[in-house]
Amino acid sequence: MSRDATEPGRGLSRRGFLFGGAAAGAGAAVALGVDRALASEPRATLDATGLNGARTVDFHGAHQAGIATPIASHATYVALDLHGDTDRDALRRMMRVLSDDAARLMAGTGALADTEPELATVPAALTVTFGFGPEAVRRGGGDAAAPAWLGPLPAFDIDALEDRWSGGDVLLLVSADDAVTVAHAVRMLLKDSRSFASVRWRQDGFRRAYGSEVSGTTMRNLFGQVDGTTNPEPGTSAFDDVVWTSDPGWLAGGTSLVLRRIRLDLDVWDEVDPVARSFAVGRRISDGAPLTGTREADEPNFEATTAAGNTVISPVAHIARSRPVDPREVIFRRGYNYDVPPTGDAVSESGLLFASFQADVDAQFTPIQRRLAEGDLLNTWTTPIGSAVFAIPPGCQAGGYVGQTLLD
Amino acid sequence: MSRDATEPGRGLSRRGFLFGGAAAGAGAAVALGVDRALASEPRATLDATGLNGARTVDFHGAHQAGIATPIASHATYVALDLHGDTDRDALRRMMRVLSDDAARLMAGTGALADTEPELATVPAALTVTFGFGPEAVRRGGGDAAAPAWLGPLPAFDIDALEDRWSGGDVLLLVSADDAVTVAHAVRMLLKDSRSFASVRWRQDGFRRAYGSEVSGTTMRNLFGQVDGTTNPEPGTSAFDDVVWTSDPGWLAGGTSLVLRRIRLDLDVWDEVDPVARSFAVGRRISDGAPLTGTREADEPNFEATTAAGNTVISPVAHIARSRPVDPREVIFRRGYNYDVPPTGDAVSESGLLFASFQADVDAQFTPIQRRLAEGDLLNTWTTPIGSAVFAIPPGCQAGGYVGQTLLD
Repeated sequence: MSRDATEPGRGLSRRGFLFGGAAAGAGAAVALGVDRALASEPRATLDATGLNGARTVDFHGAHQAGIATPIASHATYVALDLHGDTDRDALRRMMRVLSDDAARLMAGTGALADTEPELATVPAALTVTFGFGPEAVRRGGGDAAAPAWLGPLPAFDIDALEDRWSGGDVLLLVSADDAVTVAHAVRMLLKDSRSFASVRWRQDGFRRAYGSEVSGTTMRNLFGQVDGTTNPEPGTSAFDDVVWTSDPGWLAGGTSLVLRRIRLDLDVWDEVDPVARSFAVGRRISDGAPLTGTREADEPNFEATTAAGNTVISPVAHIARSRPVDPREVIFRRGYNYDVPPTGDAVSESGLLFASFQADVDAQFTPIQRRLAEGDLLNTWTTPIGSAVFAIPPGCQAGGYVGQTLLD
Repeated sequence: MSRDATEPGRGLSRRGFLFGGAAAGAGAAVALGVDRALASEPRATLDATGLNGARTVDFHGAHQAGIATPIASHATYVALDLHGDTDRDALRRMMRVLSDDAARLMAGTGALADTEPELATVPAALTVTFGFGPEAVRRGGGDAAAPAWLGPLPAFDIDALEDRWSGGDVLLLVSADDAVTVAHAVRMLLKDSRSFASVRWRQDGFRRAYGSEVSGTTMRNLFGQVDGTTNPEPGTSAFDDVVWTSDPGWLAGGTSLVLRRIRLDLDVWDEVDPVARSFAVGRRISDGAPLTGTREADEPNFEATTAAGNTVISPVAHIARSRPVDPREVIFRRGYNYDVPPTGDAVSESGLLFASFQADVDAQFTPIQRRLAEGDLLNTWTTPIGSAVFAIPPGCQAGGYVGQTLLD
């Protein structure tokens, strides 16, 4: 069913290709010019019924799913603390069971001992992605196995981090285009991890529903800001270079995840007019175009000046501070909104689950974050309240499990 | 765009009609045989782009939207406590502003002073429904204006109600097929209510995503139970009789909402095998068919007996206890799942936002609830932890506002 491709109002896009073009065959894929690097990527397929919920993503592959695969509308991040007696052997058993669960759930068939198998029949492009914090890597491979960047980020002046949103030994990232699917998968995985670990925190995020907008539209966060422009494009060599670790060790084919919970002070932001908002971002709020351009995709011109001699894009605008100084400073973002019931007199409590994947946190992420912490107009309205870094192991083949390069 | 009707895998259904058939004209509607009672119902329309997010529901009509209109995948219930100085005039001002906001947001155009208008462009079948608790009705119309059933339900032995999920002066029910749309609409409405009231509680619910399943599929709750069979069908006179108040006073054309937050003890439920689960419900978990039938739609036979002489459907099975004794005991259910981060050693904290609409709580809802409280096998695994009752005023015409029959 080449559904997306035939729907009015949908542009040609990677997402349209993955979900719609597969049935059109490899010839069509080449014609679309987006077949690069997909051989080793988990793919999404559309069931002949044409229902959104029938779409599946393969669990097995060179890389884990949920990173280069199309981003889904709902994501739940869960951090686990390993029990004291969960040693290397136990960690291996846990990852074997959880990998098996994930593969079955992603196929829409229910976990092996699924207690609500009726809820597993709507995979809705479900992906499960696993990560290891410093303690899991230490238990699995000793101190030498941990990459230098695996641990808390340096402290930044802007941070107001809370323990309840930070750290963790093992990460489960579960995402799908259906909230029931996510809830069921998270519960199955946590039931099977209960003998080995306990829940440290859970963070739920959302984006536009599948099919809500034209495919490929960049997300707007709850500030109304177009958020995710200039992201590397999955399927390109630029993306592969940014994201996948080439380290010859156990993490080869893996990556790192930085997750930051960033509170948005919407009450104060709401007092700021569109011109000032656009000035703070360096892009027009209305359409995401840089202040020196006319379309979202336009390259910002940081040298262009006004008649008064100031740069059009302020040197402390968000996009001016976040642009790479060193060409290695590129990351792949995959953010979600969060919105939880407010407390006290507030009418909302919301923000961004900022998530970025990169081969090396220290070389790619931290310099950008440091510049933003030192001076970014958006800091007026944003506060990082949670922070965690995980090593994301490579994918596995059928019969294998995620983490086996560390644990076997 | 008669989209739903032409999609593979979609049967003919009211939802398909509402979203797909509008453009086909009244003649087609009659041909489909589902045109009853729709003249006064808010309708959903599909934009020519064919995107899910472009669908809109009319705010204006004889009845409020969000009751008989197709149920959306996300719903947020917010209860407000009125400030001490919010008198009848202030309440009228509040309802005027909120009604205007709701009409504009549902049309996809943003509230009048929308601070993030970019987020308002994807209505995704947004509906906003308002309700009044006892205190709002008293301030609006004096003690005599309150229906006898408006107030806390009788206490039931099974209850473990918490204040933080119970009561409230004014209800906002915001639902849409896109979580971003819901978050934005809730915030806009709460900003404009801030001078008059504060947030008492907020409860977020979800069901299958739009397009995940074949249209018209009955929801499964997180027990895996098919939940909502034998609901009256919107657009029928049976539905109208059950739901809309015929009272000649200010509530004519309105209804009542009972909202119960029911915790599911999934850990214990998971120890119960499918046979015992089906026995407790009186329906097969696998497909929702009554134990005396083969399909979900089959009428249960409560007299059928086993060879041993017991009834096939236990007299304390959920469907045996909830069936009407008096023919007036029919309600219209519109439930959602909830799933919030667990605390302590638990791996999940979830349940059901049970919601029912009925013309008269005392005559229709309470007798059923009393029987369930006295003996329902499902009580083993369920605990009501929140409860609220609201009067739902009729709809309004363009230029009017919800509540004007009480407040003008």
